[in-house]
Amino acid sequence: MTDSNTDTDTDTEVEAEAAAEALAERVRAGEIRFHALEEHTDADTATSVRRLLVEEQSGASLDHVGAYSFDAADADANIENMTGTVQIPAGVVGPVSVDGGAAAGEYYLPMATTEGALLASVNRGCSVIDRAGGAIARVTATGMTRAPVFRVESVVEGEALASWVRDNGAKLKEAAEETTSHGELDAVKPYVVGDNVFLRFRYDTKDAMGMNMATIATQAACEVVERETPASLVALSGNLCTDKKPAAINAVEGRGRSVTADVLIPRDVVEARLHTTPEAVAEINTRKNLVGSAKAGSFGFNAHVANVVAAMFLATGQDAAQVVEGANAITTAEVREEGLYASVSLASLEVGTVGGGTKLPTQAEGLDVLGVRGGGDPPGANADALAECIAVGALAGELSLLSALASRHLSSAHESLGR
Amino acid sequence: MTDSNTDTDTDTEVEAEAAAEALAERVRAGEIRFHALEEHTDADTATSVRRLLVEEQSGASLDHVGAYSFDAADADANIENMTGTVQIPAGVVGPVSVDGGAAAGEYYLPMATTEGALLASVNRGCSVIDRAGGAIARVTATGMTRAPVFRVESVVEGEALASWVRDNGAKLKEAAEETTSHGELDAVKPYVVGDNVFLRFRYDTKDAMGMNMATIATQAACEVVERETPASLVALSGNLCTDKKPAAINAVEGRGRSVTADVLIPRDVVEARLHTTPEAVAEINTRKNLVGSAKAGSFGFNAHVANVVAAMFLATGQDAAQVVEGANAITTAEVREEGLYASVSLASLEVGTVGGGTKLPTQAEGLDVLGVRGGGDPPGANADALAECIAVGALAGELSLLSALASRHLSSAHESLGR
Amino acid sequence: MTDSNTDTDTDTEVEAEAAAEALAERVRAGEIRFHALEEHTDADTATSVRRLLVEEQSGASLDHVGAYSFDAADADANIENMTGTVQIPAGVVGPVSVDGGAAAGEYYLPMATTEGALLASVNRGCSVIDRAGGAIARVTATGMTRAPVFRVESVVEGEALASWVRDNGAKLKEAAEETTSHGELDAVKPYVVGDNVFLRFRYDTKDAMGMNMATIATQAACEVVERETPASLVALSGNLCTDKKPAAINAVEGRGRSVTADVLIPRDVVEARLHTTPEAVAEINTRKNLVGSAKAGSFGFNAHVANVVAAMFLATGQDAAQVVEGANAITTAEVREEGLYASVSLASLEVGTVGGGTKLPTQAEGLDVLGVRGGGDPPGANADALAECIAVGALAGELSLLSALASRHLSSAHESLGR
Amino acid sequence: MTDSNTDTDTDTEVEAEAAAEALAERVRAGEIRFHALEEHTDADTATSVRRLLVEEQSGASLDHVGAYSFDAADADANIENMTGTVQIPAGVVGPVSVDGGAAAGEYYLPMATTEGALLASVNRGCSVIDRAGGAIARVTATGMTRAPVFRVESVVEGEALASWVRDNGAKLKEAAEETTSHGELDAVKPYVVGDNVFLRFRYDTKDAMGMNMATIATQAACEVVERETPASLVALSGNLCTDKKPAAINAVEGRGRSVTADVLIPRDVVEARLHTTPEAVAEINTRKNLVGSAKAGSFGFNAHVANVVAAMFLATGQDAAQVVEGANAITTAEVREEGLYASVSLASLEVGTVGGGTKLPTQAEGLDVLGVRGGGDPPGANADALAECIAVGALAGELSLLSALASRHLSSAHESLGR
Repeated sequence: MTDSNTDTDTDTEVEAEAAAEALAERVRAGEIRFHALEEHTDADTATSVRRLLVEEQSGASLDHVGAYSFDAADADANIENMTGTVQIPAGVVGPVSVDGGAAAGEYYLPMATTEGALLASVNRGCSVIDRAGGAIARVTATGMTRAPVFRVESVVEGEALASWVRDNGAKLKEAAEETTSHGELDAVKPYVVGDNVFLRFRYDTKDAMGMNMATIATQAACEVVERETPASLVALSGNLCTDKKPAAINAVEGRGRSVTADVLIPRDVVEARLHTTPEAVAEINTRKNLVGSAKAGSFGFNAHVANVVAAMFLATGQDAAQVVEGANAITTAEVREEGLYASVSLASLEVGTVGGGTKLPTQAEGLDVLGVRGGGDPPGANADALAECIAVGALAGELSLLSALASRHLSSAHESLGR
Repeated sequence: MTDSNTDTDTDTEVEAEAAAEALAERVRAGEIRFHALEEHTDADTATSVRRLLVEEQSGASLDHVGAYSFDAADADANIENMTGTVQIPAGVVGPVSVDGGAAAGEYYLPMATTEGALLASVNRGCSVIDRAGGAIARVTATGMTRAPVFRVESVVEGEALASWVRDNGAKLKEAAEETTSHGELDAVKPYVVGDNVFLRFRYDTKDAMGMNMATIATQAACEVVERETPASLVALSGNLCTDKKPAAINAVEGRGRSVTADVLIPRDVVEARLHTTPEAVAEINTRKNLVGSAKAGSFGFNAHVANVVAAMFLATGQDAAQVVEGANAITTAEVREEGLYASVSLASLEVGTVGGGTKLPTQAEGLDVLGVRGGGDPPGANADALAECIAVGALAGELSLLSALASRHLSSAHESLGR
Repeated sequence: MTDSNTDTDTDTEVEAEAAAEALAERVRAGEIRFHALEEHTDADTATSVRRLLVEEQSGASLDHVGAYSFDAADADANIENMTGTVQIPAGVVGPVSVDGGAAAGEYYLPMATTEGALLASVNRGCSVIDRAGGAIARVTATGMTRAPVFRVESVVEGEALASWVRDNGAKLKEAAEETTSHGELDAVKPYVVGDNVFLRFRYDTKDAMGMNMATIATQAACEVVERETPASLVALSGNLCTDKKPAAINAVEGRGRSVTADVLIPRDVVEARLHTTPEAVAEINTRKNLVGSAKAGSFGFNAHVANVVAAMFLATGQDAAQVVEGANAITTAEVREEGLYASVSLASLEVGTVGGGTKLPTQAEGLDVLGVRGGGDPPGANADALAECIAVGALAGELSLLSALASRHLSSAHESLGR
Repeated sequence: MTDSNTDTDTDTEVEAEAAAEALAERVRAGEIRFHALEEHTDADTATSVRRLLVEEQSGASLDHVGAYSFDAADADANIENMTGTVQIPAGVVGPVSVDGGAAAGEYYLPMATTEGALLASVNRGCSVIDRAGGAIARVTATGMTRAPVFRVESVVEGEALASWVRDNGAKLKEAAEETTSHGELDAVKPYVVGDNVFLRFRYDTKDAMGMNMATIATQAACEVVERETPASLVALSGNLCTDKKPAAINAVEGRGRSVTADVLIPRDVVEARLHTTPEAVAEINTRKNLVGSAKAGSFGFNAHVANVVAAMFLATGQDAAQVVEGANAITTAEVREEGLYASVSLASLEVGTVGGGTKLPTQAEGLDVLGVRGGGDPPGANADALAECIAVGALAGELSLLSALASRHLSSAHESLGR
C-alpha cells in the first residue's frame, strides 16, 4: 500500500523518502541490483525506489503509477521489477439474464477498457437480450493444451513414438497427474513432421486457466517419454499448444473453453429497440462477419468479440495476452419466424477463477461481481460460469454493433430510395 | 479521485456516502438510469453510486476498484458506466539500448501484467541485448486501414465500382482528408466478391493509432461513393480492415506499424549469459517457432511476443483488444560467424501516443518513461518510437525464452549422452 | 505416334520392336542413359524403349500408355522420360450462355475427369443458368507474381532495400521487361522479415499463364538489385509468390486472374428445375460454405469449385498443380425479390491460352471448343475468356450441388414435419 | 475404342459416320438429349456423335480427343457426356529405393504432366536419394472424413447433440458400417457453432480413397441422428470434412494418409551430385519454405510438392481436385554431422488403389508400375504404399529444386566475393 497520494503522516513520509533515496543510491552504486530490491527492503519501498530511479532516468513522474491500493507484496507472484500499477477504467454493463450450464441469473458484467463507447454499446445489447428473456450459454468443450516438441532420428522413430504414445496413455497420465491435485490428463495426440514429433497434451484444469498446471504436468510426462523412448525433448512448448498466437488449431479444435451464447429476439423488440429488422442484421452479418472475414483470411468471423473478451479479461484477472485466442469466434445471425436468432461461439476462451491475476484485489472484486471467485462446486463450475458470462457479453456486443450498422444502412437505404 | 481508502475527512466522507445512497435510491426507484448518473452528479460520485448498487446486487465489495487516483471525469472519453479502475501490476525492464529509426538511446520499457516471471524473463533478454551493444529496430511500413463493404447489383457493377475507385482516388482522398487535420489517405484497394465490394482504405495517421480517424474519414469517402455510383454501403467495416480479429490480411499486408527489431549477439555472450549456443537457439527456433507454428496453422511464428505486446500496451494506454493483431509476428534465429543473429518482425502493431487511453494518468506516465507522450516531431515519430521499443521488448522476450529452452535442452542432451 | 494398338504394318512393327529391344539392351548395359534416349533415336522409339524397360522392371503392361495419338516429339517441351500418355476421360457440359468481359455467347465447356457424376451435376447447373438467361462473368484483377527472397545484413539494410525498391521501380521494370516481348511489370512490393527481404513482383502476362515469363523477368530484375544494393539473392522464389501452395496471400491479393461469375435465377426456375427454394439454397450456403469453412480454417468458402477447375484445367492444358490456388473461391447465395442470386469468386485462377500444355493436341482441341486457343485480341482476352468460362462452370457446379443438398433437406424437413 | 486415327476398315468407318450423323440429327431435332445418347447407341458411338455436335457448334476439330484406346463403356462410371479423352504426357522417374511401412524396394515412379523440366528435376532428386541409400517413408495417420452439418434449435440442443454423439458412438458405428464391407468408422467428433452442429466422421477406408464410402456410411449414421435427436440434417457435407478446399483442419488433423518421407544424404554426395552444401540447402529451406510460407499465410511449407502430387495422381487415377489437400506439406532440411537430413510430411494425401479412376486402362497401368493395383494385403497396404511412393517422389522434387537454388546462390555468392 503506497502513501503517495495522501497527505497524512508527513514525518513517516519524509522518513520513507529518505530510506528510498538511500536504497536508490546503493542501486546507482551497483551495490544492489534493480530487480533484487525486494531482498533489501519491503515490497512497497522497493517499488518506490524503482520509481525514483526510473523518474530520474526518464524525466517522467510516476505518481499515479505509485498510487495503488494494496500491499505490493501481494503482487509478488504476478510481476517482477514492480513500480506500481496501471489503472484501467472499469465499469459494468447489465444486468443481463444468463441461462447457462453453470451460470444462472442476472449478472452485472465487469469490464475494464480505455475504449470509449464500448460499455455503452455492450450495455445496449444486454438490455435487448434481457427484453428478449435473456441469453442462453453453454460450454461445449473444455481442455487446456501443452504440446512439447521432440527430436527423433528419422520418421521410423517418429512413427514408433506416435505408436508408443497411443499405447502408453496410462503411463503418461499417471506421471502427469502426480504433479497436480486437480488437473486430469484427458488426451495426448501425436503429430509427426519429419524428425519432429509434437505431442499435444490436453488437460481438464477445472477452475484454473491451467497453463502452468499443464506445463508442469507435461514436463513430468516428457521425462517418461525421454526415459522410455529414444526421442529427445527440444522444447516443452512446440507451438502446437497454441498459446498466445493466432492459430487455426485453436480455432478448429478449441483450447480452454469452447463456449456458445445465443438468443432469439422477437421481431418487435428488434424493430423497437434496435431500430432495424432481423433481415438487415442477418444480411450484414453475412456480408461482413462471414464473407468479409473469409476474404480477409481470418480466424475471427465476428465484429468485435475481442473488445468484450479483453475488457472482461482485464476486469477479472485473466491473461491479457490470451485475448489473441479469445478472438477466435464466429457470430451467426438468422431470420426465424419469431424474429432474430443470433449466436456467438468462442472456440478457445482461456479463463480461470483461481491462480494468476485472479487474486489481485481489484480483479478479485471483478470475479466477486459475477460470484465466481475461487474454486467452483463442482470443480470447474466457476470457470465455466465465467466463460458463459463472457460469451453473453460478447453476444451483446455483436448485437449492438451489427444493429447500429444495420439501422444506419436502413436509413441510408431509405434516403437513397427517396432520391 | 476517490477517498474510499483513506480515513481522513470523516465528515465529508459521511456526507458523500449519504449523497451516494440518495442517488442509489433514485436509481432503484427508476428515476435515474444507471448509465445516466453523470447527468445528475459529478463523475466520482457517479462511480461510487454504481459501486453501491453493484455491491448490493452481487454481494461483492468494490473498495479497491474504487481506489483510483484521478478524477473520474478524466476518463469520460474512455468508459461509460464507470465504477472505478482495475489496477494491473506495473514495472519496467531494462534499460536497454535501442538504435531505431525514431527511437534512440537507453530505455526502461514499462510493462503491466499479472503473469509472474514475464518481466524477469524480458529483463534477462534486455541485459543480453545490451551486452551485445543494443538492438536495432525499424518501422518498415505504416498504415491504418478501414474497409467498408458495399452491395452492388451484380459483378458488372462490382467491376465498374472497382474501376471507378481506381480512377477517382483524388476525389476520395479529398473527401477523406477534409475530416482530419493530420491523417492522409494513402491508398484505396477494391476487392470484389460476388455482389460485395470491399474497399480497403489505408491511412497515415501519424502519432494516433488512428482507428477513429480512419473510420470518420472513410465515412466521408463512402458518401462520395454512394453519391457517384450505384453501390450501397452495407457496413463501414466489412472485416477486411481487419480490426481485432486474427487475419492473414494483417499478417501479410501489415496494419498500423510493421516493425522489426534485431540483434547480433557474440558467441561468448550467448554462452556466458544465456548458457547455450547459437546453434541450439537456432535449432529450437526452427523446430518450435517455424515448424511448430506451421503445423498449428498459425499466423504467429514466435514464442510469446503477445506477452510483451500486451504488457507494454497496457502500460502505455494502447487498446488491449489489438493485442490480437500484435501477435502476428515472426521470430528468426540464425548462426553467423560472429554468433547468434535474432530478429522479431511484427506485421501489424497498432500503436499511438495521442488519443485513446494515452491520456489517462498512469498510461501517460508509461509513455513518459519512454519519452514518447503526445505528438512526435516529425508527426508520427513518437508512435514509430513506441513501436520500435515494443519490438525490442518482444525481441528480448523471445531471446530469453528460447535460450531457457535451449539451455534445458542442452543439459538434457548432456545427460542423455552420459547414459 | 505409336502403333501399339493397331495390327497393320506387321513388318514395320517387328522391325521397330527389334530396334527398341536393341536400344533397351544398351540402356541395361549402361551405354545409354534412360533419360537420354532421345539423343539416340526418335522420340516415339524412345518412349517405346522406356515402356519396355519399365515393363520389365515392374511386370506392368504399358500398352494403353503407349497408345497416344500424336508425335512424341511434340511433347518434348512438356515432359522428360516420356513413356506415353495418360488418357483422362473427357466430355463437355452446356452449352451455357456466358456474358463476360471477354467471353460472349453460348459455350460448351470441356472437362476431363475420372469422377463420375461431376459432368452430370455441372450440366444440370448449366441448364438452370441458361433457363435464367445466362451467367455474367468478369475478371476483376490480373497479375502473375514471383517473389524472390534476399538476405540482408540487418533490418537497417532491409529497410534500405525496401526504400530502394520503392524508388527504383522504373529501373526494375526496364530490366524485367527486356526479357519478354509481351509481359509488363506492374508492381514490386517489399516485405521485410528480419534479415530476409521478399520482393513480390506482379506482371501482366497477357494470354500466358506466365509463371515462366515472370521467373525469367524477375531473374533479370534481381540482378539489378544485387548489383546496386548489398542484398544477396537467396532464391528466385521465396514462397511469397505463392505458387502451388495454399496461401492466404493468393486468396486475399489474387494471383493470375481474379474472376467472378454470377446469376439471378427466377424463383419459379429454382422451384421447377432445382426442386428447392431460394431460401433453402441460401441457408445451406451460409451453414456449409460460410460457417462450415470458417470453422475448418479454410481459404475455400465453396462446395466443390476445385472439381470444375481441375476438370477444365485438364481439358485445356493448364497446370494441374495450380488447382491448389484455383480452389481459393467464395460462393455466395442470397434471396432477392426476383429469386436466387448466386455467385462464385475465384481469387487466384492461373490460366493461359498459349505456352505450357496448351499446344498439346487434345488440350488444344479443348481450347478450340471454347474458341480461345492462342493469343487473344487484345492480348490477354483469350485467357480472360477462359477464366470467365471456368468461373461459369464453377458457378454451375455450385448451384447444382447446393440445390441437390437443399432439395434433400427440404424433403427431409417435410418428413420430419409429418412425424 | 475409337478408330479415328487408323485408316483401316474404311467401309465400317463410313457406316459408323453415317450412324453418328443420323443420331446427331436426332439430337439437333430435340428427339434425343445430348447427355442421354448412351440410351440410344453404344458408348463409343455416343462419344463420336457428341464430337460431331461440339465440332459443329464450336468449329473445333476433336480428332485427338476421339483417339482413345479403350472401350468408352469402360469409363461410364467416371464421366458423363463423354467425347473421348485428354492425353496427358506420361513418364517415369527413378528407379528409387523406398524403405516404407508398406512399400519396399526399387520403384519407377509414374508421373503425368505438361510442365517441362519437372520429371528431369524429380529424377535428379531420385538419383541422389538412391546414392544416399534410399529414402524412408511412413504413413503416420490414416482416416477419410465426412462432416455433415445439422441445424438445432439453440445451443442447448447443440450441446445435447454433442453429448449424445459422445455417448452413442457404437450406434453410429453400427449404422455406418452396415453400408460397407470394408470401411470402419473410427471416430465422430462434434463441433458446435451457434445453432449448427458439425459431426466429423473419420473412417478407415482401406485401399479406397474412400470419399464415396464415407459419404454413404455417414448418410446412414445421419439417419440415426435425425431419428433419435431433434437435430435436422442440413447437408451431408458441412465443409468441415474438408474436401477439395484448402483448409487448416486438414493440414493440422490430417485427411486420407498423413505420410512422411526422409533421407540422410552424406555431405560428399551433396557436394558432388547437388553442387552445394548441407548448410546452403538448410538455409534456403528456412528462408523460403519456412519463413516465406509463414509470411504468405500458407498451409504449404514446401517448394513444389503439389507438382509431384498432381503428376502422380494423374498417372495413377487419383482425383485431380484433391491435389488441393495434397499440397498441405512441410519440408524440413537440417545439417547433421553426416550431411543433409531432409524430409517432407504430407498431412492430407487422399489416395486409393481401388475405385474411382484407378480402373481406367492407362491409370491401372500406372498403378501396376508401382505394383499397387487393387486391394492390398493386408487391406490398406496398397494405398499406404502408394502414399509412401508419392511422398518419396515429393522429397526428390524438393531436394532437387532446393539444391538448384542453393547452387545458384552459392555461385552468385562466389561471384560477389570475387568483386
